[in-house]
Amino acid sequence: MSRRQVHLNVNILNAGVFGGSWRFPGTDPVASFGLDHYVRIARRAEEARFDAVFLADGPAIREDIRYRPFNSLEPSVILAAVAAATSRIGLIATLSSSYNHPYDVARRFASLDLLSGGRSGWNVVTTAGADAARNFGFDEEPEHGARYQRAAEFVAVVRALWNSWEPGALVGDKSAHRFADPDKIHPVDHRGTHFRVAGPLNVPRSPQGEPVVVQAGASSDGRGLAARVGEVIFTAAQTEQEAGEYYRDVKSRAVALGRRAEDVLILPGLSTVLGSTEREAAQRRELLDELVPPDYALNRLAAQLGVDREALRLDAPLPWHLLPEPDRAGGSQTFYKIALGLARRDNLTVRQLLRELGGGAGHRIVTGTPEQIADAIVDWVDKGIADGFNLMPDVLPDGFDDFVDGVVPILRRRGVLRTEYETTTLRGHLGLPVPGHTRPHAEGAA
Amino acid sequence: MSRRQVHLNVNILNAGVFGGSWRFPGTDPVASFGLDHYVRIARRAEEARFDAVFLADGPAIREDIRYRPFNSLEPSVILAAVAAATSRIGLIATLSSSYNHPYDVARRFASLDLLSGGRSGWNVVTTAGADAARNFGFDEEPEHGARYQRAAEFVAVVRALWNSWEPGALVGDKSAHRFADPDKIHPVDHRGTHFRVAGPLNVPRSPQGEPVVVQAGASSDGRGLAARVGEVIFTAAQTEQEAGEYYRDVKSRAVALGRRAEDVLILPGLSTVLGSTEREAAQRRELLDELVPPDYALNRLAAQLGVDREALRLDAPLPWHLLPEPDRAGGSQTFYKIALGLARRDNLTVRQLLRELGGGAGHRIVTGTPEQIADAIVDWVDKGIADGFNLMPDVLPDGFDDFVDGVVPILRRRGVLRTEYETTTLRGHLGLPVPGHTRPHAEGAA
Repeated sequence: MSRRQVHLNVNILNAGVFGGSWRFPGTDPVASFGLDHYVRIARRAEEARFDAVFLADGPAIREDIRYRPFNSLEPSVILAAVAAATSRIGLIATLSSSYNHPYDVARRFASLDLLSGGRSGWNVVTTAGADAARNFGFDEEPEHGARYQRAAEFVAVVRALWNSWEPGALVGDKSAHRFADPDKIHPVDHRGTHFRVAGPLNVPRSPQGEPVVVQAGASSDGRGLAARVGEVIFTAAQTEQEAGEYYRDVKSRAVALGRRAEDVLILPGLSTVLGSTEREAAQRRELLDELVPPDYALNRLAAQLGVDREALRLDAPLPWHLLPEPDRAGGSQTFYKIALGLARRDNLTVRQLLRELGGGAGHRIVTGTPEQIADAIVDWVDKGIADGFNLMPDVLPDGFDDFVDGVVPILRRRGVLRTEYETTTLRGHLGLPVPGHTRPHAEGAA
Repeated sequence: MSRRQVHLNVNILNAGVFGGSWRFPGTDPVASFGLDHYVRIARRAEEARFDAVFLADGPAIREDIRYRPFNSLEPSVILAAVAAATSRIGLIATLSSSYNHPYDVARRFASLDLLSGGRSGWNVVTTAGADAARNFGFDEEPEHGARYQRAAEFVAVVRALWNSWEPGALVGDKSAHRFADPDKIHPVDHRGTHFRVAGPLNVPRSPQGEPVVVQAGASSDGRGLAARVGEVIFTAAQTEQEAGEYYRDVKSRAVALGRRAEDVLILPGLSTVLGSTEREAAQRRELLDELVPPDYALNRLAAQLGVDREALRLDAPLPWHLLPEPDRAGGSQTFYKIALGLARRDNLTVRQLLRELGGGAGHRIVTGTPEQIADAIVDWVDKGIADGFNLMPDVLPDGFDDFVDGVVPILRRRGVLRTEYETTTLRGHLGLPVPGHTRPHAEGAA
């Protein structure tokens, strides 16, 4: 297979990415509060030879819990349980760099890595919103730039801790009475702006060298962090132009920092709505839209944009003069830019915009037959504007089952998706290099 | 069965509780760095109908890693994986109240509880030692009393968060478009000495009401916290007298605080060395002692007591005039008191003391046949000085296999150990009441 391979993760976003996914006929609305949901999807992803399952996160309740599921169970705990029920699939969990401590995060991912045989990845997020801040001792959300500065130092400390054990430091020599070799275990002695961490970590080096670092960021700060530390980068791109701009920008930033372009994999989010015919897919899409009452959708959009609910009218354009600067938006800057880009490009009414946003996620939605969805996937990879996709099926688990049954065989026939795993680690699946051991220091932080 | 039941947990302490366990013939010295070790032992404990598996913890490397295994993998991650591989056994993980945040701890245990169907328990520890402190931004260990004050507030906040969802708040009503009922979900609005936490938790109420709170503490501060918040209390007692004194003291403290004595279960640690004959058991014990070189044992004891290594001589008594006050000891106060109690009672030499301590754990060791060990267990429970035991087999997994094969059938014949689980939750196995829902507030903290 000389053709360029597609990297695929599945994002287990509760009952699915649409606002109405949980209400879809046949869906168990509370399945994401139990283990079986995650195990079932992870096993199917493993059967399809995906790189990884992915869990988003936010450590706070969402204000619209009345109307839809939310990120609830803590992702590292979920994926540890999934690790025991799978053998090859990668396990990527989101943890906030704003509301955790680097020693604990380094340790939890290192532990997940040992328990899973080298399959863990950490999605670093800085966590927007005041609700999370107020659960962790702050009165307001820390400022955007400050969150990213902390994140950069946080990742540097975590990586230094992951490198505090040299290969071979765990000995286990019974006859010599030598359990570990202290000469190969080094302190970190980090004293930075945000953290003081002595180290060493109390977990030996990972089977894949280090857990994979995943990042997502659309702002300039976000792109900077992604280019510096991200090995896998999630992004939201609605169009080829957006995808291409982001892809080239982040890869060239990474190269400018001395990294190889191929060591930074860029995976846009992709929501899929599948039908065996175009008509069936379109009907499914229509039903998903109908399951989100307009009143709720308007409230949510108003909150995300940072405008009053009264300022939005379904059949009018966005109230452009009332929209705040991107850094004053209510939610993530990524979502804000995507939404405004869509509305401006096609001169959409609010109702049309809501439909394009698919209930609020802001990721590209492809509706169609398995062939059409396979085309959409291969097209961006062939054009060199994506290395694969972070898949967000419309309804879970059914929409993902349909993808595995319908789209995966086509991707395999086209020679862009493996039929067997060639490696046992997440880093291996992604084709990322195993970092050489470096004596730990977190100086790259500031 | 009208006879008083024995509660049993198994403490998966790496390769076993003795300093030489990892060197025992047939032992895999590094098994505790992989998942199979934990799953294997948990499944056997479930087969024996134990209440729970238990994991100790400390977020720092031990200075004697050259010579023996250490607490490495993060316990909530391990037990989440074990949850997926078991169905009934309780899952008790240790997490520090000094080096974590209550929102995160509340969430991780609530998540483990939902994933496991109500089987989680949190062992609250305040974490002695400067090494852990230096991994979390402190220069020195926070003072003992301050750690316990923080712990009391920490537990109160965690419990308030666990109570932020009323029963029935998770609705999942597709036709009414009502996912959750915000009127049944309440903020915590905690503003205390150590924490400010808005809440609510983003995890619904536990299948067992709340995860079980486990505590251990020998100091006066520790006993106070145990009596106030502990539902299961681990303790170290070498003699009937020590066990009885602790049992009566903590239960009466709990009653004085308005709790029922039977809602506080006291489980001393019990190290077991089993042989099919007395002679075989004694030989096994001797081998375990021989596997710990005296020089290492002396260094370790000196560090734990807080005296110079040079002050200890194998065949002399302890240098009583050099020993510091208990609160200046190098390790836990529990261990310090146990060690001095043993040495004083029997006028032991250092060599004899090391032998009694079994390589450093400080817990009671019973060496004998299955009948003798069953006798030792039933005796303390019948005498009303223990509600059961936190079992620490000499060598893992073999010593625990021997216990399940040899001792468990005897305990069942005597009618003190269940043959089938009667409930599905840890709280149920322990016979502890399901807490009624209380509107969250953490005022009981200070």
